[in-house]
Amino acid sequence: VSQPACPACGGGWPPADQRIAEFPLSVAYLHDDQFFPGWTLLVLKRHATELFELTREERAQLIEEVSAVARALHGAFGGVRKVNYELLGNQLAHIHWHLVPRLADDPAPSRPVWEVRHEPKRLSADQRIDRLARIRACLSPC
Amino acid sequence: VSQPACPACGGGWPPADQRIAEFPLSVAYLHDDQFFPGWTLLVLKRHATELFELTREERAQLIEEVSAVARALHGAFGGVRKVNYELLGNQLAHIHWHLVPRLADDPAPSRPVWEVRHEPKRLSADQRIDRLARIRACLSPC
Repeated sequence: VSQPACPACGGGWPPADQRIAEFPLSVAYLHDDQFFPGWTLLVLKRHATELFELTREERAQLIEEVSAVARALHGAFGGVRKVNYELLGNQLAHIHWHLVPRLADDPAPSRPVWEVRHEPKRLSADQRIDRLARIRACLSPC
Repeated sequence: VSQPACPACGGGWPPADQRIAEFPLSVAYLHDDQFFPGWTLLVLKRHATELFELTREERAQLIEEVSAVARALHGAFGGVRKVNYELLGNQLAHIHWHLVPRLADDPAPSRPVWEVRHEPKRLSADQRIDRLARIRACLSPC
């Protein structure tokens, strides 16, 4: 099920070269802005906007995929204090999770990432390829 | 399983008079600050800090409870644009979800709640009792 006007359904977002891995119900991508290293987007393949629109089986599988990516991020970066899991959809309602490992040198460890004003950090192509590989190496099937 | 130094395990947080409902794995409470009407906390009963510390069965049940509360919030308030689901734990690592219905008159509908500076809004006891009842009336067993 897809919706014509939805960028996540149309394949225009997120960019294909930021793709980490595909799961049964979702696809993981590295976020554009890597100011918080490892910030990952996990995008549902089908169109839905709220968890309660999914079937019970879909919710159970999706949270396995969320958990697997969080575990991989925890493993891929040293000294993760906490993983943040956020399903917002205020700008793009298509279900996607922001999964952010909060590292030991985080500039504001007690605050949500949204409160931390910063210049977005874009990786070079080489840096991106390295980071994708580092996260993939910590993923196990889920 | 509980941890002695954890406020969520010790029963000191959130306050009992903000309790909405109890589920098999979690308890829902109205958040202190009702600037965003309906902001709810869903607190895991046992101590754990990351989704990947739970069993698969616990994750499946917990996401049912998250979804049920989100559905209730969607039903209890008119004109919900989107529900926000956030599991952060930056200040208190014990698993708890922030579930926030973003209403039609939201002051910053495209932004995370954390970016919206505001004076916290505390309800009077009567207002709180009304709000608890309104949410409970929209909860169905999960």
